[in-house]
Amino acid sequence: MTGASEMSALEALRISREVSKAVREAVSGIVGRREAGENVGMGKDGTPTKKVDRVAEDAALEVLKGYDVSVVTEESGVVGRGNIVVALDPVDGTFNAARGIPIYSVSMCFAERRGKQAKYKDAFFGYVCNLATGDEYYADSTAYKNGEIIEVSRTKSVKETNAIMYYPERNYGFKRVRIFGAASLEICFVADGSVDCFIDIRPGKGNGMLRVYDVTAGLYVAEKAGAVVTTPEGKSVEEKSFTMEERFRLVVANDKLHRALLDVLKS
Amino acid sequence: MTGASEMSALEALRISREVSKAVREAVSGIVGRREAGENVGMGKDGTPTKKVDRVAEDAALEVLKGYDVSVVTEESGVVGRGNIVVALDPVDGTFNAARGIPIYSVSMCFAERRGKQAKYKDAFFGYVCNLATGDEYYADSTAYKNGEIIEVSRTKSVKETNAIMYYPERNYGFKRVRIFGAASLEICFVADGSVDCFIDIRPGKGNGMLRVYDVTAGLYVAEKAGAVVTTPEGKSVEEKSFTMEERFRLVVANDKLHRALLDVLKS
Repeated sequence: MTGASEMSALEALRISREVSKAVREAVSGIVGRREAGENVGMGKDGTPTKKVDRVAEDAALEVLKGYDVSVVTEESGVVGRGNIVVALDPVDGTFNAARGIPIYSVSMCFAERRGKQAKYKDAFFGYVCNLATGDEYYADSTAYKNGEIIEVSRTKSVKETNAIMYYPERNYGFKRVRIFGAASLEICFVADGSVDCFIDIRPGKGNGMLRVYDVTAGLYVAEKAGAVVTTPEGKSVEEKSFTMEERFRLVVANDKLHRALLDVLKS
Repeated sequence: MTGASEMSALEALRISREVSKAVREAVSGIVGRREAGENVGMGKDGTPTKKVDRVAEDAALEVLKGYDVSVVTEESGVVGRGNIVVALDPVDGTFNAARGIPIYSVSMCFAERRGKQAKYKDAFFGYVCNLATGDEYYADSTAYKNGEIIEVSRTKSVKETNAIMYYPERNYGFKRVRIFGAASLEICFVADGSVDCFIDIRPGKGNGMLRVYDVTAGLYVAEKAGAVVTTPEGKSVEEKSFTMEERFRLVVANDKLHRALLDVLKS
């Protein structure tokens, strides 16, 4: 992946922070309150829109419409016509946000459309911010948490692994399993070495459950922090497109552990 | 369970808040820093003591030694001689605390010793505070979150259940599974209806993994919020003792869901 010509990573960071600030302000009054979880319509993703999602997306799009970008987002689908495509999740971890459990984030992955559709290989910037704490993860060619360079753990063995996994179907021999319910943020926990891997093997309707706006921002940060990212079968995700239809099944970990995990999942 | 004669619930709340404040201050400078997770000795529970645990326990015991209580706690074992026994976990969710993931708590369950050892049925007050957010759960004969009365969810069906489970070994048909890594707090998420159940089926060395200081405070709050608490085999936990040796395997949920869960776990 090379730097984009139409927008610099620094400009993407500036826009991301503007969006993040707007979303934090918009949701601060309703997180943890019953109304946050009320259904207020149907999203373009085919699932009911919760009030906290609507409020957050409105605030995010209000900022983004001031820029020449197109946005792929949970509730509104594809918005705008710019060649810079932003995969936006205004609130990842809606379930937690509605309950005041402080694990929910805004995430944005910026890619430059080179063909008909932007692809993950065209990404040049990823940004994830925990809206409850303000912890900020981002990457251009280097990955950062709150301005400091981060890297993945060096854990090699499955039995020493602190894993995030959707969902365990048997005992894989991990040291710990955690499921926090906010994929973009959890993938950043891999990026900064807080946990050792993120795995999602859920079949969904064949291709998985995770959408492009759920995971690409986190994946971009994790890769720049040294993670290897593939499907559970070891296939590349480079060609995944920034569309509403795309789905992901994932294994994210440092290279040695990644290989060990593919073996464990196969067996 | 009747009110204790030697200490009122109000006095227990006052002490709990004094401990909680001292612990929050003590750990605030080190959570999320590498040193928080450094081993600084061996605890009476037989596992290595992390720095954040040591710092928190020192702060908690400094407060509690001013009262006529005995304390059962992770690192120091049993301390003091009072007839009021406090099961104390200075930091539940050490893994999260060391990484700055905002899900870790201090918890205290107060019981009056009537026989040789205090038992869970002798408990009269439970207190859990998320140290990262300050969210406070407690119960005397009524359960509260941040001063407001809470109750468990009314979810009846397994397929509508948002479950916390250590650890799933197959697909039980839950709507969601979450594992946040702080049992006392997670059991309070059941108490306030944020999730529908807490399950821990881990065998450990036969009796389970969870200790008296990990769970009794949360269990007391959850029961007063309407939860039924048993082992996965449906056995009462009333006779569980406030000792370092005691272990728990648990199913915590509203009565209808609780029955459905026991069936699912059996099948």
